[in-house]
Amino acid sequence: SRSINLAVIPGDGIGQEVVAEGLKVLSAVLPQDVKLETREYDFGAKRYHATGETLTDADLDELRRHDAILLGAIGDPSVPSGVLERGFLLRLRFAFDHHVNLRPSKLLPGVATPLAGQPEIDFVVVREGTEGPYTGNGGTIRQGTPHEVATEVSVNTAYGVERVVRDAFARAQGRPRKKLTLVHKNNVLTFAGHLWTNVFHRVAEEYPEVTTEYIHVDAATIYLVTDPGRFDVIVTDNLFGDIITDLAAAVSGGIGVAASGNINPGRAFPSMFEPVHGSAPDIAGQGKADPTATVLSVALLLRHLGYDAEADRIDAAVSADLTERAGLGTRNTARIGDALAARVAG
Amino acid sequence: SRSINLAVIPGDGIGQEVVAEGLKVLSAVLPQDVKLETREYDFGAKRYHATGETLTDADLDELRRHDAILLGAIGDPSVPSGVLERGFLLRLRFAFDHHVNLRPSKLLPGVATPLAGQPEIDFVVVREGTEGPYTGNGGTIRQGTPHEVATEVSVNTAYGVERVVRDAFARAQGRPRKKLTLVHKNNVLTFAGHLWTNVFHRVAEEYPEVTTEYIHVDAATIYLVTDPGRFDVIVTDNLFGDIITDLAAAVSGGIGVAASGNINPGRAFPSMFEPVHGSAPDIAGQGKADPTATVLSVALLLRHLGYDAEADRIDAAVSADLTERAGLGTRNTARIGDALAARVAG
Ligand SMILES: CC(C)[C@H](C(=O)O)[C@@H](O)C(=O)O
Ligand SMILES: CC(C)[C@H](C(=O)O)[C@@H](O)C(=O)O
Repeated sequence: SRSINLAVIPGDGIGQEVVAEGLKVLSAVLPQDVKLETREYDFGAKRYHATGETLTDADLDELRRHDAILLGAIGDPSVPSGVLERGFLLRLRFAFDHHVNLRPSKLLPGVATPLAGQPEIDFVVVREGTEGPYTGNGGTIRQGTPHEVATEVSVNTAYGVERVVRDAFARAQGRPRKKLTLVHKNNVLTFAGHLWTNVFHRVAEEYPEVTTEYIHVDAATIYLVTDPGRFDVIVTDNLFGDIITDLAAAVSGGIGVAASGNINPGRAFPSMFEPVHGSAPDIAGQGKADPTATVLSVALLLRHLGYDAEADRIDAAVSADLTERAGLGTRNTARIGDALAARVAG
Repeated sequence: SRSINLAVIPGDGIGQEVVAEGLKVLSAVLPQDVKLETREYDFGAKRYHATGETLTDADLDELRRHDAILLGAIGDPSVPSGVLERGFLLRLRFAFDHHVNLRPSKLLPGVATPLAGQPEIDFVVVREGTEGPYTGNGGTIRQGTPHEVATEVSVNTAYGVERVVRDAFARAQGRPRKKLTLVHKNNVLTFAGHLWTNVFHRVAEEYPEVTTEYIHVDAATIYLVTDPGRFDVIVTDNLFGDIITDLAAAVSGGIGVAASGNINPGRAFPSMFEPVHGSAPDIAGQGKADPTATVLSVALLLRHLGYDAEADRIDAAVSADLTERAGLGTRNTARIGDALAARVAG
């Protein structure tokens, strides 16, 4: 019989609330014969304040034993900027080699967008997750003096770029439009830019059916608001991916519905699924958070583990719910979760 | 008697056309007693193909003798990506220490925006222009092999950060709303992030009337489409500034009206003024380019040289023209320039 052994990290702020709804929908969608085992971990601001730890080697050993990880949100104003981000979120992505950071954007009919004219939006960003300016390479000299010099080193390897570019081509090949856009800034960041561009062109030869294009990251932000329909699959580096996926979320229904997967495609390590939004401490504990992004992250999780039919059911439930949402009045976090759970079970 | 000694670099593609209109408006707006001397330089793709040169030391000596530089656009698909950008545009910004890259965004009533609801937008981005990931530091080993490693180093100095942060505070202090937003990614790029954040807080103490806030660059892209009215002055690093000012241009009337100044505030070197848009080779020579961004760049140039009344007249002419544009039918590049010249002269 099948089973899913899931590590659950609710985290900080609204993380608790949205993860509860994600699990509700997960339980509702799974067939009877699939045994779901969950184990909760208390990472985040509270644990950091209590122990000074963010994520230890022993923690990583524990987490590693699971099939996947569901994360709510990590981050709190009481913790200095960077401590939990670098000490937990990025440490986990790096330790578990989550090199494919997958972020789909789809604007459903009737869903609010800041863009005029309700454009068609349906693309997915494959963001590199283990290199670029995120490696923590760099440093500071003469800190706090008028002669301080602080550097950040973007590290890009052929190995790291090629595997994520391959993943993106394979995804593009599997989609109806079969189009892949490389986003970079190769006219300024010429060292990394040439590597990305050369690898992209080389792999493209193996995918003659995929239409390719290159767009500078600055221009990409323009297209994301003037012509988002032009995108099908986008592949880009860690930092550019961070920036454009927040913008992509904003134009395609908002950060409340943006899901993401931190994926290790070869399954050497468990992959982690999380909403793109943060811990939103200002609305925490009030039932105001939209759990949809977490529920959609559960769908990505199921797809990664091979439960495609169940993932499809969640996606369909969310589509139906979002499309009808305008007529449903204000619902709190749990009501949205209940509605989605009822739809996937039905 | 007063005089302006201007270096003119039309450059590639639509650069020629838009610079002609910029000069038309400049001549029309200047009082009789101001002697305008212009000298044209042929930098760009043509010269590169003919000589292999982009910008020599002798060129810099020549350009240096002017009060300011007006640039159209540099870039052509026939030149490998990066050659003209690094060899001309960035070389000039670095050689002339253009550390304040000024990019105003104002959405005028009636002007088309991709955003729903015609929000109020009136802010200015002070982008650092001589540091960050733009320095060209970095390199490649084992190029073209499966073991290639390419790095890009973002270099940030207390000296470089402080002078641009000071410039931004002074600008914020001089505006009605007196608000300054620092945009960075200090939760991930912690070395550079701490430097920027610390300098920002230190200088803030000297400007008690200025309201300050910090926003991560990814979140800033969200606000730029959901709540652009929250911004008054933004200060940010070279790369983040590049990205968010293209987005800012897109939401506030489009790249056809986005002006910029590459400014050396101490006037040790001539400053350079240019539209944010590129050379757009696809529409070059057809009279389709909108010269408004270049005309607004001329206004920034005049303001830099102390001709505030003339700059105001240009801004007012552009506002009036843009607001009425919808009713004016399709006009080619020269017609728009003629209309603006007539308005500023009148
Ligand atoms: C919190 C931060 C470390 C993170 C990132 O920059 O990757 C977040 O913005 C994201 O997009 O998941
Ligand atoms: C062409 C390129 C070098 C330049 C930049 O990145 O600064 C451009 O995008 C700009 O914004 O002026």
